[in-house]
Order: sequence, then structure tokens, then C-alpha cells
Amino acid sequence: MARNASLSGFPELLPQERIVEQHVIDSLRTTFELHGFGSIETRAVETIEQLLRKGEIDKEVYAVSRLQAEEGAGDASLALHFDLTVPFSRYVVENAGYLTFPFKRYQIQKAWRGERPQEGRAREFTQADFDVVGDGALPFLHDVEIVLLAVDALSALPIPEFKIRVNNRKLAEGFYRGLGLEDTAGVLRNIDKLEKIGAEAVARLLREELAASELQAQAALELAQIRSADLSFVDQVSALAERHNVQNELFDEGLAELSSVLRAAITRAPGTVIADLSIARGLDYYTGTVIETVLVGHEALGSICSGGRYDALARKGNRVFPGVGLSIGVSRLVARMLSQNLATASRAVPTVVYVALNADQDWAAAQDVAAVLRSRGIATEVAVSAEKFGKQIKFADRRGIPFVWFLGEDGNSQVKDIRSGEQLAADPHSWQPAEAELRAQVTRNSPAS
Amino acid sequence: MARNASLSGFPELLPQERIVEQHVIDSLRTTFELHGFGSIETRAVETIEQLLRKGEIDKEVYAVSRLQAEEGAGDASLALHFDLTVPFSRYVVENAGYLTFPFKRYQIQKAWRGERPQEGRAREFTQADFDVVGDGALPFLHDVEIVLLAVDALSALPIPEFKIRVNNRKLAEGFYRGLGLEDTAGVLRNIDKLEKIGAEAVARLLREELAASELQAQAALELAQIRSADLSFVDQVSALAERHNVQNELFDEGLAELSSVLRAAITRAPGTVIADLSIARGLDYYTGTVIETVLVGHEALGSICSGGRYDALARKGNRVFPGVGLSIGVSRLVARMLSQNLATASRAVPTVVYVALNADQDWAAAQDVAAVLRSRGIATEVAVSAEKFGKQIKFADRRGIPFVWFLGEDGNSQVKDIRSGEQLAADPHSWQPAEAELRAQVTRNSPAS
Repeated sequence: MARNASLSGFPELLPQERIVEQHVIDSLRTTFELHGFGSIETRAVETIEQLLRKGEIDKEVYAVSRLQAEEGAGDASLALHFDLTVPFSRYVVENAGYLTFPFKRYQIQKAWRGERPQEGRAREFTQADFDVVGDGALPFLHDVEIVLLAVDALSALPIPEFKIRVNNRKLAEGFYRGLGLEDTAGVLRNIDKLEKIGAEAVARLLREELAASELQAQAALELAQIRSADLSFVDQVSALAERHNVQNELFDEGLAELSSVLRAAITRAPGTVIADLSIARGLDYYTGTVIETVLVGHEALGSICSGGRYDALARKGNRVFPGVGLSIGVSRLVARMLSQNLATASRAVPTVVYVALNADQDWAAAQDVAAVLRSRGIATEVAVSAEKFGKQIKFADRRGIPFVWFLGEDGNSQVKDIRSGEQLAADPHSWQPAEAELRAQVTRNSPAS
Repeated sequence: MARNASLSGFPELLPQERIVEQHVIDSLRTTFELHGFGSIETRAVETIEQLLRKGEIDKEVYAVSRLQAEEGAGDASLALHFDLTVPFSRYVVENAGYLTFPFKRYQIQKAWRGERPQEGRAREFTQADFDVVGDGALPFLHDVEIVLLAVDALSALPIPEFKIRVNNRKLAEGFYRGLGLEDTAGVLRNIDKLEKIGAEAVARLLREELAASELQAQAALELAQIRSADLSFVDQVSALAERHNVQNELFDEGLAELSSVLRAAITRAPGTVIADLSIARGLDYYTGTVIETVLVGHEALGSICSGGRYDALARKGNRVFPGVGLSIGVSRLVARMLSQNLATASRAVPTVVYVALNADQDWAAAQDVAAVLRSRGIATEVAVSAEKFGKQIKFADRRGIPFVWFLGEDGNSQVKDIRSGEQLAADPHSWQPAEAELRAQVTRNSPAS
């Protein structure tokens, strides 16, 4: 990762870096499947109409067209998807007749945005999304389920401590309405800038743009400043609402939902999930729970796992498919793991054993040994020429292969552990490396290293 | 797969179909890694200049541009890659200083071509490439290694019998030169049309386009009609060369190489690899071994695994990186497996156990059971409301989940196999489903079914 991408914003990994990325993706897949989420993939392109339907970031979209399309060929205007949520909601609507609901899926794919590249923000990046979608209705408990799955998925990765920050749009919108602020989307949009521009500037925007009174602006800001890793936020929020005489059903519902999420999280993952009333999420389609996640000590990297509840993203006539889900920024995470050496692969190749040759004509016998080892799950390469043993060992060492196999008469083979120098007689039908040698291991480095 | 893609040429799979595709990809990855090949991925886009460098299919390329790019932003002209070979050779050149050679990599990614869609030819498709690349030189034995890896990789898939057809460019080019035909690329291009337009038409093209004599044209055609699953082709080719007084070193070298590939294949995979002197491969960059693969009974589908030796695809100054590799058409294979029901997934979800609820307040206790089962590698979902047991069982059944778990007092849980109806007492710390139940199984259907 010290290398510069030859095309800015389109980084490519070296083999040993790719092993770290594969480990992250494999681990996420395992956790998703353990929770009953199945895989789908959607095509890389959507019609531009579909992509811009949600009033989204049009200038960041990459349009796609055939280089020499015939005039009047009637091809649809296409663009690369910039996230996996919009394609997923289209997929659900198109395939509703073939799916069983609630539909639980994960989707690990690339997405593209023409943004200015910086660390944690590439033009091509991999996202890992997981969502539950219902047909008509979706019980609130799935919001809790999704948060607990995020905890499990992130906990299994070799990354630093993380904090999942949860808020609820109903709570915030209900509170603003109770204050008399009707443009709740406008308030949220400005509250979202809190970390960037500070409380005073947000208060000014609320007054100037939304004609909020000083008192309304201050109340909205006070709400956004409440956070707790326990249930104490409930009393703080309630006291604030009482002080401002906020009485609103949506507010009550949101507060109850956020309490439920925290209650479950406190039992199952104490300290990991935080009620943070400043979380707004820019996107319009969220309607309840909203979530962002930061790596402790890497807050400036931005959120590594975000999303929430959307009640009306996917529609088919008057049939609606409410959902709740999150998106993990795989590329953002992996880029940071590599640039700050947070995790390392134990070797750069999958190979466990390198079969050396005594003479060029041993190649076929060496293939026999390799076939037996492979059939037992032991990754094996065979030398292609009978150079001096020292040279063959050096070659294996340079590739990071831990064992070299020497063919012997009548099956008297020997295997050498290059790292320790230990060399023992071995039979390909029974020799077994340690479990941890079978695959490259990816381990978290201690912060001191 | 009976469904039509909502965007022609961009098919999307249902969850149970995606399990078949995942199985194919997982199996290929396992085989590649057992042979010591590591994973890399390249970016989806290349500069158009890079893509068209090899004089390729320009009208099939998808150009990519930012929808609202500023004038004069100086962005490079980009396009989606149409295969993985060109991006890989660029990757090798760019990263040569960080790689160890011979570099063995596999790459399973999507590619895009704006072709007219038909079965086995989509506009977005997944390829699985595996190549060995040397620095300066690459011993010929790697050609044999690649063919044997193809045999292993394809044999592990739940697909019908396949035949790998091998030829050698040196043999063919040397033969044509020996005949006095100097435009060997022109001859190959026409021989490549043999299956499509027949021998007579090819002979006419050779005479008219390349000014070949009747005798030269017939000799070229005779060569292309030789094939054998044993070494008998060597005598046939030699006799033909003698008859036409062909004496050419390149020819001798090619014949020796092709014999070596066949000799190894006959020992290790009898009947699977065929010397087929008609195989030409359209692309210019092949310089030795060339390979195509057909599924027996599905020949019209086209090749499912193609490639060969390329001695000069990747260059950095006067440093050259010769390689040999193959590309498996994953999407082409999977589309056929699904459309003709060649293989099926045992269920549509990863879930093994569905934990039912006696009462809504049991949800937390059910999560405890689920956490234990998941920690033991058993994929588990939890119900979200305490509907009647019959309804909860029906729900699990509809999703294809094989087991329902009923919580009991003091850990007296029971688990029911929905398919047999058998219900037994079970402890989440020790209950174990059959190995084959842990994951959805993908199995080859017998041709009769």
C-alpha cells in the first residue's frame, strides 16, 4: 500500500495484501451465513434513471456506454452503481415473486463513485451489505437483530475496538415536530454538519435557513449532544422533551425503539453500542433506526459500518417492502489495516509444501507426491528444474513457503521446515502440518508493534 | 433462470442459484490454492489506450466517464475490462518489483463486453483466470502444469464430462512456414473458421486471400484435421510433414511440446486431454500451447476454459514476462448448469436451525441458544414473534430450513427435523447436525433426471 495506484482512486493490492482482504471478506461471509443471511449479487450497472431516483449524488456517478454503439440501437442509459442499497431494492421489487420474506441477504461487491480520492475514499471500493426486508411489514426486532449481527461481524475481524453509534429518526423528527419545526429533513441535514462546522454554525443555519427560533435551535442542538453507552440517555432525552413541552407520538415511538436496541446491546455486547443522538445519516430514505460505526483511535477515517431502517425504499405498485440493513466499508477498513499495519498475513502464498527435484526426470514422481498432498488439503507446488537443493530451498523461502519436500527412494521422502531447519522422514499419505500452517493466517498486530 | 433479465445481457441469480455459483467459485478457489496459486484482483477499469493496445474488439468495449465531469478535469479515458488477461499483464508490469517469479496467481472477477446477448454470452460475466508468469524466461513445464491444474479444477465441479483440446502455435506456424506460407497469422485466422464454414470454404479463403496453392491449402487443412487422445497424432503429423517436405525448427519444437503435454495428461487424466490440431485461438498474443475446452454434449455452448502460452504479452522496457494461463468461463458454465438443471443446491438459505418462540419475551433466551449454536458453526435464525408453532414450522419449511428448535424450561430444549418429523431433546452445546446439513450442498444431477 506504499505504492501509488497507477490510476488515482483505483488502488490494487499485492498478493499478501489481498490475503488480508480475502480474510476480511471470508470472515464477514461466515458471520452473515451463521445468522441465516444468504448471498446475492446484482449487476454492476443500473439505468441512470434508477440511480438518480433517490435524488442522489449525480455528479459522482460513472456513466457507461458502448464505445462504438450504433446510432439508434436503443440501449438504455447506464451507470455503475454507487452503493448496493439502490440495486438491492430494485432486485427485491423485480424478484419479489421468487423470494421468501422476510428476505435476509448479504452482498459483497464493488461500487464506484467519481469522488476526489483520499484515504478511506477510493473511486472503486468493496462494500459488504446485509439487510432484512419484509413484504408489507417488518417487525422492529429485526432492527435489533441487525445491530447484533454488526457486532458479531465486526468482532470477528482483526481490527481495533469499534463503537456502533445508534440513533432513531422517529425520535429526532418527533422531537423537532414537537418543538414546532416542521422541516425535519432540513433540521437533520444541518444537525449532520455538527461535527464538521460546530454547534454555533449549525444554530445559525437553523435560524437562517429554517427560521427556527433561538430556543428551537438550542433544543435541537441539546438533543444532538446526548449520548450514553447505557440507558441513561432515556432520562436525559425525556427531561429535555419535558422542558420544551414536546409531546409527540413519533418521538415516543422512536425513544422506545432506541431503548430496545440499547437494552439488547448492553446485555450482549456491553460498551460496544452507544446511543448517540447526533447521528443523522444524510440519506432521505431512513425512517427509524440509524447507525454509524467508528474504529476507536481512527475516528477521522469516518464510519466503517452504516445504515438503518428504511420503510419505503422499495415499492411495487401499492406493495411496499420495508427493510433494515447496514453496509460495511470493506475497502476503507482494509486500506487502513494495511496502511497502519493493523493486521498481517503470515505468508504471501497459499502454498504449504514445495516439492524439490533431485533430477529433472523426477518431475512426474514429484507430481504424484503433490497430488496426494493436495487430496489431503495441503497446498503444494512442484519445482520445474533440478537445481542445487540450496537454490531450491532459497526459492521456497523467498516465496514464503514453509516446507520443502525431498523425494527419496522407495518412498523414503523427507520434509524440511525451512524456518526451524528441522528435517524429518515423511509419507505424503500421513504427514500433517500444524492446523495453522494449512492456510496463511491473518492476525491483528498489537498496537505497540 | 427462467426469468428474463430486466436489462438484457445482465442476468442476476436468485439466492438458490447464487449458491450454485458460489459453490463453483469456492471450488475453483480451493483447487487453485491447493496448487499454490494466490488471489489478486485488478480494478474494473483500464485506460482505453491500454485496452485497445492489442488491437482488440473495440466496439464491444464499455467506456466509463463521470456523468458530470468538469471540462478539462484531465480524467483519463476509461473503459471496463473485457477480459482479465490484459489487466493482469499490466498488473505484472507495474508491480514486478514487489512480486516473486514465477508468479502464480488466480483472479475471479467480472468482465464486460457489449456483445449481442445469447446463452453463454452475457454482457456482464465472471471469469476465473489462472496464470504462471516468469521474469525473462518461463520453463515449458509450466504449460503442462497449467493443463493439469485445469483438469483438477474442472474435475472438482458438478458438471458433465469435459474434453480439453490442446494445440501448439509453434507446430502450426512452423508447418505453414515449412510449406512456404509466410503469413502464418492469416492462415491461423482462416483455420479458426473451420468448424463454422467448413473445409472447402477455408481452402478457398487460403487460396484467394493468402495466394496459397491448392497443395498448400490442402496440407494446412489436413494438419487441422488431425486429433487424438493418445500420442498417435505424433506419427500422423510427422508423416504429413514428410510428405510435404516440411523441415522447420519451430515445427519440431512445437511437436515436442505438444507431445509433452499429452504424455503427462495420458498418465494423469486419461481420455480428458486431446491433441486437436484445429485449435487456433483468435488472439494474436499466443505463441505456443493453445487450449480450448468443451463440455461433452454441450459443444455448441463454446469453450468453457481457454488460453495458452504467451511469450511477450507483458513488457517493461526490454524486460519481458512470458506467461501461460487459462480462463474458465464461470458465468457461461453456471448459466448452463442452471438452465439445464445439471446441478442443484440442497436448500436456498444457509440456515440450519430456526429457533421458535413460545412467547414474545423468549426472544432474548432464543438469542442465547442461537449464539451458542453459531459459535459451534451452526447457522441459526431466531423467530421474531410467538405465532402458533404450526405457523412457525411452516415458515421454516417454506424457507428450506431443515431444523426447528423449541426452547424448554431449564434447558430442556427439543429440536425437530422438519423433513422426517422426528423430534428429540437437544442441548445447544452438544447437538450436532450431520456434516452434510451444515451447509447447502450442491450436487450434480444425473443426466436422466
